[in-house]
Amino acid sequence: MKILVINGVNLDMLGTREPEIYGGRTLDDINSDLSVIAKNMGADIDFVQSNIEGEIVEFIHSGRLYDGIILNAGAYTHYSIAIRDAISSIKTPCVEVHLSNVHKREEFRHTSVISAVCTGVIAGFGEDSYKLALYALLKK
Amino acid sequence: MKILVINGVNLDMLGTREPEIYGGRTLDDINSDLSVIAKNMGADIDFVQSNIEGEIVEFIHSGRLYDGIILNAGAYTHYSIAIRDAISSIKTPCVEVHLSNVHKREEFRHTSVISAVCTGVIAGFGEDSYKLALYALLKK
Amino acid sequence: MKILVINGVNLDMLGTREPEIYGGRTLDDINSDLSVIAKNMGADIDFVQSNIEGEIVEFIHSGRLYDGIILNAGAYTHYSIAIRDAISSIKTPCVEVHLSNVHKREEFRHTSVISAVCTGVIAGFGEDSYKLALYALLKK
Amino acid sequence: MKILVINGVNLDMLGTREPEIYGGRTLDDINSDLSVIAKNMGADIDFVQSNIEGEIVEFIHSGRLYDGIILNAGAYTHYSIAIRDAISSIKTPCVEVHLSNVHKREEFRHTSVISAVCTGVIAGFGEDSYKLALYALLKK
Amino acid sequence: MKILVINGVNLDMLGTREPEIYGGRTLDDINSDLSVIAKNMGADIDFVQSNIEGEIVEFIHSGRLYDGIILNAGAYTHYSIAIRDAISSIKTPCVEVHLSNVHKREEFRHTSVISAVCTGVIAGFGEDSYKLALYALLKK
Amino acid sequence: MKILVINGVNLDMLGTREPEIYGGRTLDDINSDLSVIAKNMGADIDFVQSNIEGEIVEFIHSGRLYDGIILNAGAYTHYSIAIRDAISSIKTPCVEVHLSNVHKREEFRHTSVISAVCTGVIAGFGEDSYKLALYALLKK
Amino acid sequence: MKILVINGVNLDMLGTREPEIYGGRTLDDINSDLSVIAKNMGADIDFVQSNIEGEIVEFIHSGRLYDGIILNAGAYTHYSIAIRDAISSIKTPCVEVHLSNVHKREEFRHTSVISAVCTGVIAGFGEDSYKLALYALLKK
Amino acid sequence: MKILVINGVNLDMLGTREPEIYGGRTLDDINSDLSVIAKNMGADIDFVQSNIEGEIVEFIHSGRLYDGIILNAGAYTHYSIAIRDAISSIKTPCVEVHLSNVHKREEFRHTSVISAVCTGVIAGFGEDSYKLALYALLKK
Amino acid sequence: MKILVINGVNLDMLGTREPEIYGGRTLDDINSDLSVIAKNMGADIDFVQSNIEGEIVEFIHSGRLYDGIILNAGAYTHYSIAIRDAISSIKTPCVEVHLSNVHKREEFRHTSVISAVCTGVIAGFGEDSYKLALYALLKK
Amino acid sequence: MKILVINGVNLDMLGTREPEIYGGRTLDDINSDLSVIAKNMGADIDFVQSNIEGEIVEFIHSGRLYDGIILNAGAYTHYSIAIRDAISSIKTPCVEVHLSNVHKREEFRHTSVISAVCTGVIAGFGEDSYKLALYALLKK
Amino acid sequence: MKILVINGVNLDMLGTREPEIYGGRTLDDINSDLSVIAKNMGADIDFVQSNIEGEIVEFIHSGRLYDGIILNAGAYTHYSIAIRDAISSIKTPCVEVHLSNVHKREEFRHTSVISAVCTGVIAGFGEDSYKLALYALLKK
Amino acid sequence: MKILVINGVNLDMLGTREPEIYGGRTLDDINSDLSVIAKNMGADIDFVQSNIEGEIVEFIHSGRLYDGIILNAGAYTHYSIAIRDAISSIKTPCVEVHLSNVHKREEFRHTSVISAVCTGVIAGFGEDSYKLALYALLKK
Repeated sequence: MKILVINGVNLDMLGTREPEIYGGRTLDDINSDLSVIAKNMGADIDFVQSNIEGEIVEFIHSGRLYDGIILNAGAYTHYSIAIRDAISSIKTPCVEVHLSNVHKREEFRHTSVISAVCTGVIAGFGEDSYKLALYALLKK
Repeated sequence: MKILVINGVNLDMLGTREPEIYGGRTLDDINSDLSVIAKNMGADIDFVQSNIEGEIVEFIHSGRLYDGIILNAGAYTHYSIAIRDAISSIKTPCVEVHLSNVHKREEFRHTSVISAVCTGVIAGFGEDSYKLALYALLKK
Repeated sequence: MKILVINGVNLDMLGTREPEIYGGRTLDDINSDLSVIAKNMGADIDFVQSNIEGEIVEFIHSGRLYDGIILNAGAYTHYSIAIRDAISSIKTPCVEVHLSNVHKREEFRHTSVISAVCTGVIAGFGEDSYKLALYALLKK
Repeated sequence: MKILVINGVNLDMLGTREPEIYGGRTLDDINSDLSVIAKNMGADIDFVQSNIEGEIVEFIHSGRLYDGIILNAGAYTHYSIAIRDAISSIKTPCVEVHLSNVHKREEFRHTSVISAVCTGVIAGFGEDSYKLALYALLKK
Repeated sequence: MKILVINGVNLDMLGTREPEIYGGRTLDDINSDLSVIAKNMGADIDFVQSNIEGEIVEFIHSGRLYDGIILNAGAYTHYSIAIRDAISSIKTPCVEVHLSNVHKREEFRHTSVISAVCTGVIAGFGEDSYKLALYALLKK
Repeated sequence: MKILVINGVNLDMLGTREPEIYGGRTLDDINSDLSVIAKNMGADIDFVQSNIEGEIVEFIHSGRLYDGIILNAGAYTHYSIAIRDAISSIKTPCVEVHLSNVHKREEFRHTSVISAVCTGVIAGFGEDSYKLALYALLKK
Repeated sequence: MKILVINGVNLDMLGTREPEIYGGRTLDDINSDLSVIAKNMGADIDFVQSNIEGEIVEFIHSGRLYDGIILNAGAYTHYSIAIRDAISSIKTPCVEVHLSNVHKREEFRHTSVISAVCTGVIAGFGEDSYKLALYALLKK
Repeated sequence: MKILVINGVNLDMLGTREPEIYGGRTLDDINSDLSVIAKNMGADIDFVQSNIEGEIVEFIHSGRLYDGIILNAGAYTHYSIAIRDAISSIKTPCVEVHLSNVHKREEFRHTSVISAVCTGVIAGFGEDSYKLALYALLKK
Repeated sequence: MKILVINGVNLDMLGTREPEIYGGRTLDDINSDLSVIAKNMGADIDFVQSNIEGEIVEFIHSGRLYDGIILNAGAYTHYSIAIRDAISSIKTPCVEVHLSNVHKREEFRHTSVISAVCTGVIAGFGEDSYKLALYALLKK
Repeated sequence: MKILVINGVNLDMLGTREPEIYGGRTLDDINSDLSVIAKNMGADIDFVQSNIEGEIVEFIHSGRLYDGIILNAGAYTHYSIAIRDAISSIKTPCVEVHLSNVHKREEFRHTSVISAVCTGVIAGFGEDSYKLALYALLKK
Repeated sequence: MKILVINGVNLDMLGTREPEIYGGRTLDDINSDLSVIAKNMGADIDFVQSNIEGEIVEFIHSGRLYDGIILNAGAYTHYSIAIRDAISSIKTPCVEVHLSNVHKREEFRHTSVISAVCTGVIAGFGEDSYKLALYALLKK
Repeated sequence: MKILVINGVNLDMLGTREPEIYGGRTLDDINSDLSVIAKNMGADIDFVQSNIEGEIVEFIHSGRLYDGIILNAGAYTHYSIAIRDAISSIKTPCVEVHLSNVHKREEFRHTSVISAVCTGVIAGFGEDSYKLALYALLKK
């Protein structure tokens, strides 16, 4: 079982960026925890991050070779039809995750153009959102 | 640790209702599984269901005495400001769950009037949505 | 052949409520007439009424055991996705009826959230709307 | 008692056009059945059809000399204010009918600009829609 | 100086149609009065009427040979882009007239798709609307 | 003179629910004060509360036997056309009250579907809103 | 017969302001012409102008003592509900005029909040718009 | 305790203007009654009225020296952000009042741009609306 | 291989109508060129034109006997659901063409109600739009 | 070089009004600073302020005699088409300024009806907004 | 004559991605065919593809040195104002192409932000869309 | 004091691109002038440009080490929530600049998704917009 975790725009700023919303731990901290969990459950896990929409598209294309994708597209969630189409172009199940509960924030964050092509959505549990997505994929 | 699972309108029809969307197991089947998991993790868990909006409001009021609520409000999710206000009226964290990925379905199911007052949202994993919500609450 | 007639919110006020819109006969008067017609055509017919959305949902659930449902949901027609989902959850054909021609009245009465899951719609013929619905179901 | 049945645009294609939506019988087949029913109930009935909006307007003008009109305006239902005004310009009661349940189809078919000036609306019963309209008019 | 008066859909019903809105005189009565005024001012005037949108388009095309057009398109005013384009396709100035003050009536009558390609608009003066339009054209 | 005070959904939580918005006194506290005022002014006053929309509808039906109704429908204010229709179905004057100034809060609280069928509206004065409504009804 | 001509905001700039839209003659030039016409037809005519919305409101109030008002409210046409209410508050017929055809210009100029309370509307004939309005009032 | 009553646009026409909506008494009549009530309750009360938006703004500025403002802004209620900002610029509590129940009237009267910065709103009780506002302010 | 070219409303004015948008050649000029190309490619081609929506509907019905339709519906493109339904009622592939790039023009020209039932769309190449459509159909 | 600085509604309250948004200095303080800067750069500068929309219109008219206008229209920015038209009626370049960054505030403050007719816009720099506007005009 | 073919986001997945919508051939297959056609018609042709919006912008900038551009921007078609501005920044004619008929698919695919700055649009002919665009450019 | 000037998409085309809107000078010309001014005022200044949204995001991240950012995001201004979030993720004040007055251009350019997280906005002064932004930052 192989899982690909894709983090999108501004998520390299985790730990620095608005910690009252996103928490104080860095992306590396979160990824380390996920690695441990995956290993314990006998799964392989890879991590990529990019701020560039087109690179995220290509990461998703490469997701064809995995059994599941965990995707936090950051702000691109709200308008990137390119990322939506990338997810549609492959067969690998993809779980949309968000650190914060986007529905508690600005109106424009309530719309996700990618949810409709994902398997499911998990939002609002901080870094636990990733862990729950990992359980969900490994269970299937 | 005490958890209250509240199921809303039409969820008593699970197993019968549109199985291609909601799966073939009954609400009792799902609740039994959740009981086992809760017991294993050392938590108490109670289950209620109603088709009546005002009774769901009162179940939420009674949630004051619990450490967490798992709520699948069914169709009321999309318009019941009454249920939203009930959640705001207590301090217990509440996780919104959906069996199906509502974003793949009709436009009117893309709006939730309760997400903004919940801790987080989990949708699209069938009955696993409840289990992930349970993990999320027990982890906090 | 068994038919269930479900009347919704405020329809217990028929005969009293705005007679210039809804006419001067009571719900019992209308139901008596329908009983006679059904008997003449060799069909069984049952009648229920409730002002509570969740009870109407449950009446519809019980409609599984009938060959057809005639539903006047009253004001719930315009916003009860719960009732819509209840109709979808069973296989019995359901005919939506209205006493008044809702399209002659306030803008918000022009929208029905249940029409899309009903077999057909009959509106504007006063209590004859019920009779036409009965003919329509018995003909099928 | 004299009834005028007006069929609008594309209804001359019945039997050919999308039979999974509109059924396999032709307009002549339907009209023959209506003739028999009308005769049995002691009423005269005339039939006209046109694909041209302005001719339908004139058919409605000629409806002044009838006791009731049954109108299936086809696609013009959704935008012909000209037809709406023609109905308003006479006193004869007019029943709007549709073969299919328009509310199950594309969004733009959910709006009728003529319902507000008709006596009532019957939709979704295939060719029985016409028969129910005939009963409704003869009953009045 | 030659003027063409074009009357559109349902205006052949004047005198019969909703006299509380449109007055009790027929289109012929109105046209007779306009003829007298035109003759007195030394102008030729022709009159046409049709209920068919495409014929109104062709009347406007023929307006190339006139010095001015007075157009009451009736209900087509509110949605006929075809008539709008016909007016654009010629150079003759065209005055839009309405018997009633359309802004006092239903919301959908507040929009005219042809005003933007007409010289001017006159509405609300009953049959005097035509006379004012005639003065306006003859003055230019 | 007989007055009926109807409190709707979540108002049984007063004193507990978001005291920074709704104040710290319970519904019983408020009702006691109103009783004293009514008695002093020589009027009878009754109090009911329900979280169930359909029961509020029935309380309003029973308001036929009173000279005035004071109604705080809570969240149902914003979407219950059923309650609106219940008010229309009786002749007793009904005053809509709100504890908080709903216009200072979320956008969706700025719409009331019941104001148009009430005698008047009083909002923003805390529990004094009820007292002002009582004065208003007793003055008439 | 007494007529009051009210010009609103920025109309004191006529002759200076955007002559390609509004023409090169001043408001005094236009008023002089109107005076001559009125005198010839045996009518009294008065002229007022203000850039201040509230003063225009008061001019309209003073219109009670006239037999007709010709009103070019300028930009206030598009948003002054205050002017609309002033027109409603008196019985004198009021004709709305515009120099330019407002429908050829920016979208926001297509809406008039005062048309619905005026007798009629005349737009697009330059200063002839005033003259046509004068004829219209004197004819009634 | 000092109270300032500010009446806005067209309210000087009270008694004359649409008496079926606004009643037959003049603004002076209403103010006299309020004076008596205020005096009885030991409060000072001043009255101002203007049709000019900017003067109403200045009256509100002068309200800094009072303990409460009662404001009926008339039509400006629906669009005057200037008046809204004036209320925000001072600390004195301001009660918004309306004679009629604005929610029973045209759609555009259902929006108030000032409610969100007022203490509370009272509408629909005729001149009693002012009296209730006075009680509300004196109670605080 | 048989092709039917249908031109709609105002296209008989080509060569005369707004040549800066539509070019200076007549419809006959364009059709002659298409005839030559079709002949060279061994195909039969027929040409019809009408300004009347209902006649265009009937031309499309007759398209059942062809292998392909090239349709420039003119202004009807933007609102004729009747034409849309006519295309759906037959099986012949239909290519939508426009002389001008409609997306460079007024907002209302950006919407086509017929594109969704056509095989493809070609716009903006002047009379070459027809030729490209012909190539496209003959290639299939 | 002559500059006219026009301040609009509520700006006479500067120093008093919501200092957390607008700062603690008065309009006179700001104007004094601007005078010094202008003098240093060899320019004449005049200052006017009004709360009355129509007076601001007239100040702008008088701006014909200046080489540049700096305009802070206050709340009128968001709805005064009258002020927009006044700016269009003269040739003097006009710079729109705001003390606060209006885009950080309520939704309705994000719309300016005057920006499209101004030379440029400067917002969010407190009283420095005026100084930057002055530099911008003197540079041209 | 030199032509540049630019393919945008996800088009490198052709042959793999949703073959029921986009067909089974790869981008290289399509480009090879286009090369042959171009060579036969005596034209040079170059091919580029990128998933990155900014790189597509730069490809368009480089299009200055070509006589025509064929652009399939993929999902960026629907929201990339950056690509729109890039097309405006050069003089080379640009033809917008789509493999599928975007109007048959999701609502959000009906909007193109680039059509208005392209010469023309061709959609729905599979890979023939590119060939038709090539003919169109070579013909000009 | 260190300032970072970030130019976004298509701004490398300055001097070439639509000079009637953007002027004839190149980005290097503008940057040279800014360097001189910065040096004169004792500040350091750096310049970056990219057409790629994600690179602009990273430039903004690097802005943490500066005292101020001047950002012209080009077309990304209107839809890049990614850039908005990047600005929120750092503490450095950021001034949004535009060469043209975006409010004079197409409707979609009137919306900026980044203004709300910038310190201020300067638009419409050509390359002086950058200089004014520099003064604004150095003054703070």
